[in-house]
Amino acid sequence: MSRRREILRRAAEVFDRQGVANTSIEDIAKAVGIKREGVYYYFKSRGDILLEVILPSSTTLLMNMKGVMRGNMSSMEKLHGAIQTHLNAFNPTYLEMSVALREEHFFRNDAKLSELRRVWDEYSQLWIELVEEGQEKGEFKKNINAKMSAFAYIGMCNWLARWYDPAKDVPIPELIETYFTLASSGIGINE
Amino acid sequence: MSRRREILRRAAEVFDRQGVANTSIEDIAKAVGIKREGVYYYFKSRGDILLEVILPSSTTLLMNMKGVMRGNMSSMEKLHGAIQTHLNAFNPTYLEMSVALREEHFFRNDAKLSELRRVWDEYSQLWIELVEEGQEKGEFKKNINAKMSAFAYIGMCNWLARWYDPAKDVPIPELIETYFTLASSGIGINE
Repeated sequence: MSRRREILRRAAEVFDRQGVANTSIEDIAKAVGIKREGVYYYFKSRGDILLEVILPSSTTLLMNMKGVMRGNMSSMEKLHGAIQTHLNAFNPTYLEMSVALREEHFFRNDAKLSELRRVWDEYSQLWIELVEEGQEKGEFKKNINAKMSAFAYIGMCNWLARWYDPAKDVPIPELIETYFTLASSGIGINE
Repeated sequence: MSRRREILRRAAEVFDRQGVANTSIEDIAKAVGIKREGVYYYFKSRGDILLEVILPSSTTLLMNMKGVMRGNMSSMEKLHGAIQTHLNAFNPTYLEMSVALREEHFFRNDAKLSELRRVWDEYSQLWIELVEEGQEKGEFKKNINAKMSAFAYIGMCNWLARWYDPAKDVPIPELIETYFTLASSGIGINE
């Protein structure tokens, strides 16, 4: 791992553990085992580090969701693909996703956030289109607001950042199937 | 509104707008239109204010959920009641709920959080029991992990803190029915 990547990795861990607001460059340097100057050699500020910790996993998620939407599949299969894509983002980049989903506030009045917000807006829009497409094709219930449904599913998946512990909870592949079942046919037994 | 309640109300607004980490007692005093000392007369610290902003709505939510679970209803009706209870918590105390759901980090190493964490743990446990009860009664799908489902629904509801704007989005009563439909029978058209 390059020094640069190591700083980002340790920063993600420290951000996850104590929150960005309570983290100093000094804390990150300590976690890497180097001096503050060693961090400043690569990054101008804590905000720059944060953005680089969280933007790549969000951008990858958006790219993969675009792939799902372009696929030649039924809307139900796309729903499965979208849940899979989203939950898989927690697999290798669990810490980065968790930090991303908790720390948007930190950037609230920061121009840097605009890039991150653009990615998440575009991503949400694709989910809304997925629901609308399924409604038009007659695969999804029509009497349901597409935006509300899209955010229900995004929320269901994103909430993992708050409770999911890869060491203690069920593996992601199992979670993908469970969440797809809940999203597609609900918890009730349909007769 | 008493001065004490006014401080809590304005604090919720400021916390919601700029995040707790970026809020000083001075900011809260300014929002109320009084001096810092006027805030300190009622509260010892920003943490005390935060706890009092978020604990009451969480405690009410827990109490109402206990009421739902004690009810003499089918599990499906309890699921409706639980979603109703949860989303209604956003109705009068929208700001407080939003702050509660974003700022748990702030208290992470703080003894004060233990009270809040206890409330949310007990609340989550009731949701898990709701799912298990429905599975035992044969109303809910059995091949689904109860904890994963419970957190799916809690996440779906809690995510409102991130996107819901009472001035722009559909009213809460409509959202309750939409989310109940999604939770009980999914988005697919069941034939």
